Amino acid sequence: MLPIAIDVMSGDSEPREYVAGALRALSDDAQLQLLLVGDAALIERELQGAATPLRERAAIVAASQVVTMEEKPREAIRHKKDSSMRVAINLVHEGRAAAAVSAGNTGALTAIAHFVLKTLPGVERAAIISAIPAAHGLTQMLDLGANTKATPEQLRQFAAMGAIIARDVNGIASPRIGLLNIGEEDMKGHEGVQAAHALIGASGLNYVGFVEGNDIFSGEVDVVVTDGFTGNVALKTMEGVAGLIANRMRQEFQASLADRIAGLIARPVLRRAAAGLDPRRYNGACMVGLAGIVVKSHGHADRVAFARAIGTAALAARRDLTRHIAQALHAEGTRS
Amino acid sequence: MLPIAIDVMSGDSEPREYVAGALRALSDDAQLQLLLVGDAALIERELQGAATPLRERAAIVAASQVVTMEEKPREAIRHKKDSSMRVAINLVHEGRAAAAVSAGNTGALTAIAHFVLKTLPGVERAAIISAIPAAHGLTQMLDLGANTKATPEQLRQFAAMGAIIARDVNGIASPRIGLLNIGEEDMKGHEGVQAAHALIGASGLNYVGFVEGNDIFSGEVDVVVTDGFTGNVALKTMEGVAGLIANRMRQEFQASLADRIAGLIARPVLRRAAAGLDPRRYNGACMVGLAGIVVKSHGHADRVAFARAIGTAALAARRDLTRHIAQALHAEGTRS
Repeated sequence: MLPIAIDVMSGDSEPREYVAGALRALSDDAQLQLLLVGDAALIERELQGAATPLRERAAIVAASQVVTMEEKPREAIRHKKDSSMRVAINLVHEGRAAAAVSAGNTGALTAIAHFVLKTLPGVERAAIISAIPAAHGLTQMLDLGANTKATPEQLRQFAAMGAIIARDVNGIASPRIGLLNIGEEDMKGHEGVQAAHALIGASGLNYVGFVEGNDIFSGEVDVVVTDGFTGNVALKTMEGVAGLIANRMRQEFQASLADRIAGLIARPVLRRAAAGLDPRRYNGACMVGLAGIVVKSHGHADRVAFARAIGTAALAARRDLTRHIAQALHAEGTRS
Repeated sequence: MLPIAIDVMSGDSEPREYVAGALRALSDDAQLQLLLVGDAALIERELQGAATPLRERAAIVAASQVVTMEEKPREAIRHKKDSSMRVAINLVHEGRAAAAVSAGNTGALTAIAHFVLKTLPGVERAAIISAIPAAHGLTQMLDLGANTKATPEQLRQFAAMGAIIARDVNGIASPRIGLLNIGEEDMKGHEGVQAAHALIGASGLNYVGFVEGNDIFSGEVDVVVTDGFTGNVALKTMEGVAGLIANRMRQEFQASLADRIAGLIARPVLRRAAAGLDPRRYNGACMVGLAGIVVKSHGHADRVAFARAIGTAALAARRDLTRHIAQALHAEGTRS
């Protein structure tokens, strides 16, 4: 496999945290090679303490600019041609990297990825997809925020791409697809989801119909399709609820000495329950539908979470996701 | 206070569960009087075991039809004129009840409420609002699903109504309002939220700008405004995450004998942590913006949750919410 290009400069965390995440990913995966993109002197400094077997698999690619979290997508394309984000994506386009990973500004990342890599034939807009922990495994959900809206035809394309990810990444032969709506009955929702419902229903996919927000976790579907606005709100809502519950429990287990002792006794069990739900474990959302793999890490990712995002990119590259999506969409195009 | 009209027939639970919830509400609130609307013989039967002091405050109003969960809103208006839902709302319109409560089909309830009660001057569409547990108290969120979309002007009206609820129900003098979006920066989101951002910003409300899904729980705003599609997906997503976490914990605390013992020791602490988050405690979402109070209970509500929804209706009636919203919107109208 080609190396993976890592933008270590963009995001809410410090570059040193992303470099540490990159080293962690190298240590987790002995076959992995990385191109660390950004301020060469800074990266060099952060790599100094690293063990030789890791250091040897990390090359540095210099980039003189950084796309900020506030940067408008169009400005980023025009004025940040030597940014770590742009250079990382260029490396994919030039065939020098198997994938690019960035924790930066989603809008700019989406815009630059579309501009440099272009979408695959049959795809109008790329979508961001990620696995969400559910009752009996994982649910793949898209779009998590690459776009602020989606046409019915784009939702149909998202459904087709989601099905391929669930098949190739989660090993599900005929993934069950649900379209997010505010009721399960056929007549519910606005005209946009109604039109998408008809299109996906006629697509030959294993479409089970409308699902609601709680079905993301029910295990009754393998793929949940929605527009990037709704998907992003749902994703951030999940994070918010999980954080609120964790905080409440922490507070209550510190309320008195007896509570603290109960907490010590319960801790191993609570840790096990939390392990499967830790959002850091699921960090790294793939942007799918482009002629190349781009993985978006959470902006606030720490080294553990960032290493996971790199792992997601490596998995996508090894499974040859881009080619599979292109083939499936091509097959669909010839069929219809 | 006038009695509250309770539709005991509509929803996913059995009528007996809703009647039991009504009795529970009567027992919680000694000043409360109820009109139980539906199949008179059935209600009579369910009330037979009730203590006299409760039974005396519950009158029966017969209704021969039931609006089903699948019923189209328009059909419900046309063909279910003697349904428990319609009769309960009629009682509010006729000045015989202070509020109506139903666990039925949201679409039909919204349509019938608009048809019978009409919106207040200055309100185009009513919205469903509910309190959501957050880091330092509660966040009021609307619209949770009365409408499948909202214009920027409707979002501005929702913001104005949300501010009044946060003031009158939660006692916050100058509630901080946030508009749900997929990023906090001013330029994020589609043109609909952009236009609403400008309108609410110019409204004189204490508007803090865009917020993201996790801010529903952060305690940094008192009111979160969004369209009914996004709001409903977010609400169901919250329920789904909370349920998933609760199930995982239950499983882990049963994995072995040692885990079961740890669970017994931790149970009182976990109960306390869960108490503030129990969705049943927050059941009962107000439909605001109508010339009368209508409260929507969760369809799957059990007696505990349904009693809470009745409590929400009683509180809204006692705080004279309809008059306050009308006054505030009128004052706004004269100002602009």
